[in-house]
Amino acid sequence: MKIVLIGSGNVATHFARVLNKNKAKILQVFSPNLKNAKQLATEINAEAIDNLKHINQQADLYIIAVKDDKIKSVIANLPILKGLLVHTSGATSIKVFKNVKDFGVLYPLQTFSKTKEVDFKTLPLCIEANTEINFKKLEKISKSLSDQVHKVDSKQRKILHLAAVFACNFTNHLYAISADLLEKNGLNFNLLRPLIKETTAKIEHHLPQEVQTGPAIRGDIKTMNTHLAMLKTDKELKKIYKKMSIGIKNHNNV
Amino acid sequence: MKIVLIGSGNVATHFARVLNKNKAKILQVFSPNLKNAKQLATEINAEAIDNLKHINQQADLYIIAVKDDKIKSVIANLPILKGLLVHTSGATSIKVFKNVKDFGVLYPLQTFSKTKEVDFKTLPLCIEANTEINFKKLEKISKSLSDQVHKVDSKQRKILHLAAVFACNFTNHLYAISADLLEKNGLNFNLLRPLIKETTAKIEHHLPQEVQTGPAIRGDIKTMNTHLAMLKTDKELKKIYKKMSIGIKNHNNV
Repeated sequence: MKIVLIGSGNVATHFARVLNKNKAKILQVFSPNLKNAKQLATEINAEAIDNLKHINQQADLYIIAVKDDKIKSVIANLPILKGLLVHTSGATSIKVFKNVKDFGVLYPLQTFSKTKEVDFKTLPLCIEANTEINFKKLEKISKSLSDQVHKVDSKQRKILHLAAVFACNFTNHLYAISADLLEKNGLNFNLLRPLIKETTAKIEHHLPQEVQTGPAIRGDIKTMNTHLAMLKTDKELKKIYKKMSIGIKNHNNV
Repeated sequence: MKIVLIGSGNVATHFARVLNKNKAKILQVFSPNLKNAKQLATEINAEAIDNLKHINQQADLYIIAVKDDKIKSVIANLPILKGLLVHTSGATSIKVFKNVKDFGVLYPLQTFSKTKEVDFKTLPLCIEANTEINFKKLEKISKSLSDQVHKVDSKQRKILHLAAVFACNFTNHLYAISADLLEKNGLNFNLLRPLIKETTAKIEHHLPQEVQTGPAIRGDIKTMNTHLAMLKTDKELKKIYKKMSIGIKNHNNV
């Protein structure tokens, strides 16, 4: 299996490492910034390039792992390729491929940071391809990396991405709101960390709606009013408090 | 150390078990429902009672672990006690104690379920008492149970409770919203579980504002508009999406 990586960021880096470990041969790493390409290429013994025209046209798989808004222009500037061309974006449709024969999507549903190792075996890989043959090819590669390979079409992938914004980005913002409330009152965020950990542990084996707790689900209006009174100087936080409490109540009445 | 437990729910049960393991002698377990009192009392070799007048007046410590709205009437109906009387509520002020000589608060900042064991050593115990002597007494007991003992006054405790609603109850509701979005589109919540786990793992060693990701913090208006268009049939979800996105943007501009 010969592979070319287009991109040198977090996603490209983690794919490079796991593919290299799995004895795939990574021929090249492309980045418009040659220094970045070299940094990753050296690690996995590949060639660094900064011009898409120099891409090896004989690879089996080309993985585009660049910022969402760059995918289109990367595709437009590629030479004709023999192998399968995939992107790794959650928010980009498979329709982004124009004038390409074999294409697909290999979307890793995880948040990456360069320094922290990722366990690919448990990482959901969401795949899609333009033909059944290409799908089987992509499925085989994916299953060699992860035990969690799922067929997910572009419409579903958009939903996944949206759901992840709620479950991860917005959740993190709620943590930030809590951290602020504590800091302003001379309390350390450490106090909340065990509770947060346990709350998340609960949904590892339950659906979240089954383990909802707190004043809103209890219908404890007295506590909710006390909380709103405490937030009175912050209109935006009050609105979030109200919206979320109403949401909890309605969700569980349906 | 002789202890009486007033209550037989989750909090009472976990205190009973950890105190019993630490060689404290639990004399009695009170519940208005004798069957419930007996169930817990049997486990730790204590007497079950359903009448507050029968409480042993010679214990060192009395722990009230009943529903918030029952604390006041429990206190009013207790005989005169020799030992230290504490409640375990996050949302109840120390001022709830009337006509009591020695009192305090022993608030475990964790979510309990009866069947799952709790690691008390890492569990933050927030304590407060009416005198320095009582505080020292409560601190000594608390430190024998946990490595995370914090002096937290009633005002701070209310803030902690409010912060926990944001960080845990509201967070869980965001998980429920995500689970719904997935289910409606034929996708399993399992797909999101690894990402949720990793998102929470990130804040174990960072402040949440340092690790915020997603379209709002990137200022990726195109993706946010796509998401809002996908939510158009659900006005409430759209409002939550907007509020949280604005919150993320403002929070990180300050």
